[in-house]
Amino acid sequence: LAADGTFKHLGLVGCGLIGSSILRAVREGALVERTSVFDRDGNVCAYVQAEGLADAAATDPGVLAGADLVLLCVPVGAMGPAAASIAEELQPGAVVSDVGSVKASVIEDVSPHLPGGVAFIPAHPIAGTEHSGPAAGFAGLFQGRWVILCPPGATAMDEAAAARVEALWHAMGAQCARMSAAHHDQILGITSHLPHLIAYTIVGTATDLGDDLKAEIFRYSAGGFRDFTRLAASDPIMWRDVFLNNREAVLELLQRFSEDLSALQKAIRRGEADTLERYFEKTRTVRRGVIDAQQER
Amino acid sequence: LAADGTFKHLGLVGCGLIGSSILRAVREGALVERTSVFDRDGNVCAYVQAEGLADAAATDPGVLAGADLVLLCVPVGAMGPAAASIAEELQPGAVVSDVGSVKASVIEDVSPHLPGGVAFIPAHPIAGTEHSGPAAGFAGLFQGRWVILCPPGATAMDEAAAARVEALWHAMGAQCARMSAAHHDQILGITSHLPHLIAYTIVGTATDLGDDLKAEIFRYSAGGFRDFTRLAASDPIMWRDVFLNNREAVLELLQRFSEDLSALQKAIRRGEADTLERYFEKTRTVRRGVIDAQQER
Repeated sequence: LAADGTFKHLGLVGCGLIGSSILRAVREGALVERTSVFDRDGNVCAYVQAEGLADAAATDPGVLAGADLVLLCVPVGAMGPAAASIAEELQPGAVVSDVGSVKASVIEDVSPHLPGGVAFIPAHPIAGTEHSGPAAGFAGLFQGRWVILCPPGATAMDEAAAARVEALWHAMGAQCARMSAAHHDQILGITSHLPHLIAYTIVGTATDLGDDLKAEIFRYSAGGFRDFTRLAASDPIMWRDVFLNNREAVLELLQRFSEDLSALQKAIRRGEADTLERYFEKTRTVRRGVIDAQQER
Repeated sequence: LAADGTFKHLGLVGCGLIGSSILRAVREGALVERTSVFDRDGNVCAYVQAEGLADAAATDPGVLAGADLVLLCVPVGAMGPAAASIAEELQPGAVVSDVGSVKASVIEDVSPHLPGGVAFIPAHPIAGTEHSGPAAGFAGLFQGRWVILCPPGATAMDEAAAARVEALWHAMGAQCARMSAAHHDQILGITSHLPHLIAYTIVGTATDLGDDLKAEIFRYSAGGFRDFTRLAASDPIMWRDVFLNNREAVLELLQRFSEDLSALQKAIRRGEADTLERYFEKTRTVRRGVIDAQQER
């Protein structure tokens, strides 16, 4: 442990869009002394080495030996196995964190595998693009974005570890907030998971209209569809895991969404102009809130 | 009629985002000799005059007298009354066109009001932003965008008028395509109308979750929700009219969308990982098509 609380040796499990962006941000800011990557995919390790993104990269977890911070950067469905595979490399005093988009399931899956004396600080950077893989990452990805931490414990060790993880995210340009895992999964259900599910659905609906319409759908996509195709181009494995691991919150929000959609459908069928106009006036004001929260590009 | 087929006097009915963007583009390119605006809203006329966007602006249709091209730039539900109000100002040989997002209903509503010897060329520029009103317009709005023309007639007069309207759009930086009104309404139903309806719905669903969650929903909106708030900030009157005037196409697409959403909902509930992954892999490829069609910003 460095005297100032910063980490000396950062280990990553998985190096895709998020992992490689962390490596680039850490390298740019010289935020740690050493970085190591454990990724099952030899091509990813070769890329990391060729680009000099980390000091070491290997398909064996042994490469993480000595890391005082290990970040799990794999799809949420792979968090449990990832934690199990690195357990032997974790020294007392090490901190484990993650970047998963669901928090309750990750806590449940990861915690049992961690040895005593290792603090687990679940975290979720609200940042990303529709691209995936290590070549898609960039150092500025977290600039101005929020990272939500959901520390499950409240011991002095947990508190110290959370503060150190926050300091690292701050150094990468992010802002940090804390909340319970259940609350995180509810909020992200509406701000991220449901929007992605809806985007995947509508792009699928359009695709099924037939090959003869496809060229025209692409060509005239600037009217709104385009924005959905961006979301629906996100990593399929990552999102499959998100929906399966935040199932209850997503299904409940989907139920509310379906009810609202049915109400608008009925208003359109019946020609209820006032109902539609009132609804659209209401949603218009939400945009102001997003802009005021400085979360527009 | 100018010898080279260009228009000499452009009249606009309605001057919001689209109308004012046309005026700016026409002014920038010096594409006509004279421009006139008829808008029921005295504030809009005052803005147009103060900014020098047109040579004349008035709340009386008489300002359009002598125009050889009149563009109807009002919500689609107001097209019929707009056409009726200007019928007396239209000279033989004049061309009327519009910018409405629905074409079949506009043809039905506008055509009966136009005097003989006046060609009607329904058109739809696939361009816009979430902002509305004359101050939101800009000259480059149509640059690289598509304009769809749906000429209902096929006489020599119609053909000549359509070619002249196309030439004006080309001069504003747009590309033109032609198709039937029914086909237009089907294609735009999926690329624009359904996406907006879905965006309005999900933003409404989020808003109804309660005031205590709102600040957090805004703050963490970068995960996907943000993109929907942009669409759902579009002009409420315009979109109310779109849904009511492209009712059949929107309701049919909505039915398909709901079925697809139910299938994904079931897959999530049952934990069918393969079904989800296959669906998300399929939609991912659509993004490529949009990018290849050069319709990404």
